[in-house]
Amino acid sequence: MTNTNNNIELPNTGAENQEIQGALQSLRWNGQQLDLLDQRLLPEEIVYLPLETAPQVWEAIQHLKVRGAPAIGIAAAYGVYLGIREVDAAANGLLAEVQKQADYLATSRPTAVNLFWALDRIRAHAGRLAAEGVSPAAFKEALLDEAQKIQAEDEETNRRIGEHALTLFEDGFGVLTHCNAGGLATAKYGTALAPFYLAKEQGLNIKVFADETRPVLQGARLTAFELQQAGVDVTLICDNMAGAVMSKGWIQAVIVGTDRVAANGDVANKIGTYSVAVLAKAHGIPFYVASPLSTIDLNTPTGGDIPIEERHEDEITQGFGKRTAPKGVKVFNPAFDVTPNEYVTAIITEKGIVQAPYTENLRKLFE
Amino acid sequence: MTNTNNNIELPNTGAENQEIQGALQSLRWNGQQLDLLDQRLLPEEIVYLPLETAPQVWEAIQHLKVRGAPAIGIAAAYGVYLGIREVDAAANGLLAEVQKQADYLATSRPTAVNLFWALDRIRAHAGRLAAEGVSPAAFKEALLDEAQKIQAEDEETNRRIGEHALTLFEDGFGVLTHCNAGGLATAKYGTALAPFYLAKEQGLNIKVFADETRPVLQGARLTAFELQQAGVDVTLICDNMAGAVMSKGWIQAVIVGTDRVAANGDVANKIGTYSVAVLAKAHGIPFYVASPLSTIDLNTPTGGDIPIEERHEDEITQGFGKRTAPKGVKVFNPAFDVTPNEYVTAIITEKGIVQAPYTENLRKLFE
Repeated sequence: MTNTNNNIELPNTGAENQEIQGALQSLRWNGQQLDLLDQRLLPEEIVYLPLETAPQVWEAIQHLKVRGAPAIGIAAAYGVYLGIREVDAAANGLLAEVQKQADYLATSRPTAVNLFWALDRIRAHAGRLAAEGVSPAAFKEALLDEAQKIQAEDEETNRRIGEHALTLFEDGFGVLTHCNAGGLATAKYGTALAPFYLAKEQGLNIKVFADETRPVLQGARLTAFELQQAGVDVTLICDNMAGAVMSKGWIQAVIVGTDRVAANGDVANKIGTYSVAVLAKAHGIPFYVASPLSTIDLNTPTGGDIPIEERHEDEITQGFGKRTAPKGVKVFNPAFDVTPNEYVTAIITEKGIVQAPYTENLRKLFE
Repeated sequence: MTNTNNNIELPNTGAENQEIQGALQSLRWNGQQLDLLDQRLLPEEIVYLPLETAPQVWEAIQHLKVRGAPAIGIAAAYGVYLGIREVDAAANGLLAEVQKQADYLATSRPTAVNLFWALDRIRAHAGRLAAEGVSPAAFKEALLDEAQKIQAEDEETNRRIGEHALTLFEDGFGVLTHCNAGGLATAKYGTALAPFYLAKEQGLNIKVFADETRPVLQGARLTAFELQQAGVDVTLICDNMAGAVMSKGWIQAVIVGTDRVAANGDVANKIGTYSVAVLAKAHGIPFYVASPLSTIDLNTPTGGDIPIEERHEDEITQGFGKRTAPKGVKVFNPAFDVTPNEYVTAIITEKGIVQAPYTENLRKLFE
């Protein structure tokens, strides 16, 4: 694949388009610019946008061309570098410009926590460089290094989660997942999808079942897509088929990502996760949650303390570009649900696998 | 509402369109013609097609303007009458014409069992009339009577199912249903939806939750629609939200229809029914199946003996005119699943409520 703005129709078979085989990356530095996968066009088109300026990065974040908290943070870190690389100034002048660009990029999506975290890290690094009085060229190079380090660390976290998760799976397992906790939301691998990429690298055969995940269909549009691109054996089902495939004996484990893990091990994740957890328990199937330490919030005592966002009814009544429900009908559209810790067989972090009692064992991770 | 071809935009509030308030009817005889609700246009438009000839009825069945086995059978019975009413002949000549029209209408949808059942009943009735040598006018009138009788009996069966079901519900109950087993598929009331219409007539407040029912969305397009039109309190949810609303304590009972009940009480129904049954059991919520006797098949020993149709992947990957999954992805799309009898709290028929042991108690219904 070239570095220019590519617009590739998805192949019907892998053989037709070997250039884009292998795991898709949400973003990649190519030496001159940030190539960013436009997620709004998935799964119909694979387009890498060449971002060469901070305003281009701002616009990509603002318009959801990049989504997933870790991926947004990484894009913003590169954005600061792009914003200062043409500036002709000494280290102190560059520091002032970093602050300006970081403030600007922080306005691209005001609720994304990882965005602020990444920008603060870049700011702090620039402060150290200015204090050391490095040359302008060294300053710029070190800033780019820091952005790449943020990306590499995210990838490493996910790889470790994947390695721990893979110890729970066996060759030939059928594994069901819900929503998208994949490479598209992170630097690489994702969290819940990481073991599938590692299994592929190691030649293990894991058969993934992806819930389509109504109403926004992240499972169909993103999970099925990125696993298919990587050559992972993936089968798409509707959410209401999860019980049927479990009863057939096709599923040996469930793994999902999470938006927040409470101190007691209750897990908030995409709506429908709770139903899958109950079905798994009824069928004697282990239910695993992949979570980096940054997603475990010891300040949230239980799942009941996690606010559940309710979203617009249009996602359900006309989510496919066409009205599929009567006008004026009442709709309940929670974006998330909470799975109580009793349904969670284990939580898989970059520091290892945690099991009940969660209140005690999650706390130990941070000691 | 007039008897002409009406094309009415759905109202945003009931107040704007009082003429179409009250339960919608899939079909109704207006004295001169059969007014048939065009179900392909639901929920966006309510159009009653005035059918005045047998070919018009044939075309309406063929093109799925009417769906639901009982409703198809009723439409065909009227179709035979429409096919002979202008024929100038004595009773024997009319009998020959009935046979011809019935043969013709039987070709409209070759797999619909109720279609053949209704046409055979009309044929037999015409045979008796010819044997009695009644006048041409009396022959025609009696044939119309028989069509109306088929319709009335279907309505009566459903009303009885609804009355029995309603004894299981209390004022203020939240009741979840899946797919569409409603008035649109039958003469009136439907099976699983019958108690909601009766509750409305009796002033009871039942709060219905309708699963949208992927992939074809019969819950969103039909159940939410017909209940909304009848003024029943209905809330639309995605299938994967069923567990979440149960865990909130909003659901006191589940009721669904069925495509076939096996002799041991195993229940085949729309895909996703099994997941709902497992979730109901996990939450201690009774799971009811509404079934006319005609749907109970004592010749099918268990659910394992019921063939499960798998349908085209396009229903999942581009169900509503827009691609929502990558090309070439593997898809599993079973149209039905089987709920084992241990999850079925009761089966509600027109002859009463049946509970386990089903093998024994279902057989008693037919003695």
